Amino acid sequence: MAANATAVPQAYQAYTSAAVPDWLNKGDNAWQMTSATLVGLQSVPGLIILYGSIVKKKWAVNSAFMALYAFAAVVICWVIWAYKMSFGEKLLPFWGKAGPALGQKFLIKQAALPATVHHFHNGTVETAMATPYYPMASMVWFQCVFAAITVILLAGSLLGRMNIKAWMMFVPLWLTFSYTVGAFSLWGGGFLFHWGVIDYSGGYVIHLSSGIAGITAAYWVGPRSKADRERFPPNNVLLMLAVRAAVDGVAGFNGGDPYSANIDSSMAVLNTNICAATSLLVWTWLDVIFFDKPSVIGAVQGMITGLVCITPGAAK
Amino acid sequence: MAANATAVPQAYQAYTSAAVPDWLNKGDNAWQMTSATLVGLQSVPGLIILYGSIVKKKWAVNSAFMALYAFAAVVICWVIWAYKMSFGEKLLPFWGKAGPALGQKFLIKQAALPATVHHFHNGTVETAMATPYYPMASMVWFQCVFAAITVILLAGSLLGRMNIKAWMMFVPLWLTFSYTVGAFSLWGGGFLFHWGVIDYSGGYVIHLSSGIAGITAAYWVGPRSKADRERFPPNNVLLMLAVRAAVDGVAGFNGGDPYSANIDSSMAVLNTNICAATSLLVWTWLDVIFFDKPSVIGAVQGMITGLVCITPGAAK
Amino acid sequence: MAANATAVPQAYQAYTSAAVPDWLNKGDNAWQMTSATLVGLQSVPGLIILYGSIVKKKWAVNSAFMALYAFAAVVICWVIWAYKMSFGEKLLPFWGKAGPALGQKFLIKQAALPATVHHFHNGTVETAMATPYYPMASMVWFQCVFAAITVILLAGSLLGRMNIKAWMMFVPLWLTFSYTVGAFSLWGGGFLFHWGVIDYSGGYVIHLSSGIAGITAAYWVGPRSKADRERFPPNNVLLMLAVRAAVDGVAGFNGGDPYSANIDSSMAVLNTNICAATSLLVWTWLDVIFFDKPSVIGAVQGMITGLVCITPGAAK
Repeated sequence: MAANATAVPQAYQAYTSAAVPDWLNKGDNAWQMTSATLVGLQSVPGLIILYGSIVKKKWAVNSAFMALYAFAAVVICWVIWAYKMSFGEKLLPFWGKAGPALGQKFLIKQAALPATVHHFHNGTVETAMATPYYPMASMVWFQCVFAAITVILLAGSLLGRMNIKAWMMFVPLWLTFSYTVGAFSLWGGGFLFHWGVIDYSGGYVIHLSSGIAGITAAYWVGPRSKADRERFPPNNVLLMLAVRAAVDGVAGFNGGDPYSANIDSSMAVLNTNICAATSLLVWTWLDVIFFDKPSVIGAVQGMITGLVCITPGAAK
Repeated sequence: MAANATAVPQAYQAYTSAAVPDWLNKGDNAWQMTSATLVGLQSVPGLIILYGSIVKKKWAVNSAFMALYAFAAVVICWVIWAYKMSFGEKLLPFWGKAGPALGQKFLIKQAALPATVHHFHNGTVETAMATPYYPMASMVWFQCVFAAITVILLAGSLLGRMNIKAWMMFVPLWLTFSYTVGAFSLWGGGFLFHWGVIDYSGGYVIHLSSGIAGITAAYWVGPRSKADRERFPPNNVLLMLAVRAAVDGVAGFNGGDPYSANIDSSMAVLNTNICAATSLLVWTWLDVIFFDKPSVIGAVQGMITGLVCITPGAAK
Repeated sequence: MAANATAVPQAYQAYTSAAVPDWLNKGDNAWQMTSATLVGLQSVPGLIILYGSIVKKKWAVNSAFMALYAFAAVVICWVIWAYKMSFGEKLLPFWGKAGPALGQKFLIKQAALPATVHHFHNGTVETAMATPYYPMASMVWFQCVFAAITVILLAGSLLGRMNIKAWMMFVPLWLTFSYTVGAFSLWGGGFLFHWGVIDYSGGYVIHLSSGIAGITAAYWVGPRSKADRERFPPNNVLLMLAVRAAVDGVAGFNGGDPYSANIDSSMAVLNTNICAATSLLVWTWLDVIFFDKPSVIGAVQGMITGLVCITPGAAK
């Protein structure tokens, strides 16, 4: 048989089963689940190993455990109340109504993100409602790994400073009263979103919020003991390098954000990697020029800086 | 050009080449290969690192090697005789006819799993033949990583107890005479399957069979030496935490089991993660309530328990 | 609604947005981005951890850093001039014209690889122009991770022998004056390609070129110091085993090379794993037969040998 432009191949017909509705694109869904997994791997084991190896040996297991606990706690809070506070119906201009994102009826529907109310001069809506070609379940999980990594990045400011039991209370509280506000305001149809602020892939919601919260939390928790500050050798520089895996995680991060396996995703994956690489090289060459030898720590920091910078604009 | 509901886009037309038949959905195939890779990564390096770090230092390399060898041995036995014993033509009610799953003609056909002979009262078949939209090669490889991880989970009961040469004989024998029986009976159209027993994603075939075999094997092999039992400190708690990566592997595990990148996969990925997180948290909080401090080992055990429980029912 | 063979499901219609042209298959694009990520993970953290653990402790961080630096440097050179030298317009029979692969207009076009000028006796072209169903951005990134892993494999010959600053100059020079020649000649439409030499997935361009360059470079750089040669214990055998992750990376490697998530990809993934497993087992059993015990190092070497052998022919 020759290629045929009118008969839909059997494998792409809709309604062959209840799980294959008209709006499901399996390529999009496969990519969304894959990129969510890559972001998840960036947190665990990625950041777990980074945290376990970057601190003094005596804090290694504790630090890794903080990250693991945070991941699990975020998942539960997310599906029980926090997803809807971030992406649900409006309660206040900066907050959605809390509610579970657990029911089968809700999760098997087509995914949807709210539209802006801003209009161009000719009357068309600036950002139409997004209705990706996969179910809500993929969307809830994808947004969940974002929330989780934000909390775990924030944990980075508190390594070796915070009691594990205090952390166990802090995680659900911060997620509920801080993350959801940022997420709803910017992504979920809240006031910043309606003002036209665009945060492509978490530059504000993730990096800014975990950064500010990190500084605030570190301020209140106070400095590490004097002895610890004087000598703070990383536990394991080799494993620390494995953080580079984070870059590939971020490739999923930005790659998954056009909510489709389309051209924008391809651009985002490529741009992300170019930016991380540039930043790493600049930092390394500066080390060579000013200190006459490259520094591993500098290179890793440079790479992370590059990644943070690319996140808001990756698909532009 | 505007969207068009009658012209099939060029990129989705069938028969553009011999490798693109009518029944091939590239989204499904991409997801199946990706989830097989995730399950593979769960075994190696996932379980390899776990086994190397959970035992005493003197057994570390030996334990890791047991897992690596098992993976390779299963792959070979699988394609030469064991796939067909598990999913091929019926030889006995609990066993398929052995035969190679290697020929190009066999591997490029559309994948298929047998139907049940059970009927509802109205006469329709309970479970129709499954014919996923990708080739046999993807199916054989996906089922292979399942078989491999079962044997490697079983190895967990024998760490530090078994001679490596004995293990080298044991793996092919157990795969051939035990795993294939369970797989054929439940998944491959055998008697349990026809009775209507449904094992969504390996609750019985994988966890039960590796568990029972583990206890049996450990019984026959006997306990570790007295000195070893008295003191059994893990070699590397930090790396052990990396087992959390297993969760993401399991996301692929259950996510790949609807044999399609459809709504069921999305539900399975989300449910799996919720269940692991719940179990980890409950265990951690119980540790806090009863022992007044959380325990890393408890958390990891809790998480694994949760994963084992979700497996049979992930997409329900 | 029942399945319908004439109406194209909404989710597969083209031109629903500018990012969804007629030639975009989201399943192919998802798979291409996923397999590029798997190859990337094979380099970092895969080879980084391998290099950090296979050498003497004093070289561990240096070796890992060599690999990390190389990855970043290749990415930058690739998009600024080297991609077009490898896959662009012909300058010489063995070289393409240098030029940036960065512009949006270039990157959002459909990907394309040149045709041969060889013809069968009946006049049809032997290998038609390849026009995969995804954008150039995916192609540039996929080819980039190949180039990066070639340089990092080459680094393996120089561990503990080369000054890091010399390496920092070497990487861009070798990529520009050696890799691009091999890639253009064989893949990019150069003279070897037109003679009908087919290199399915990098057997020559990657393994041969990194191998020869490795020997040459090692010759010029000279041997390690006498004391180092006498005793060269690996730093960390356990982590070295994690190199097995490389196999899964290679699954992406070969799996991504048909430039589509079609039957050929499925065959390539399966064949790759069978070959690695066979080679590992043969090596292990030879160790048992001749030395009466299996050797971990032997097994890992066997596996790698198998992978190198399968690469040129994986989809045959």
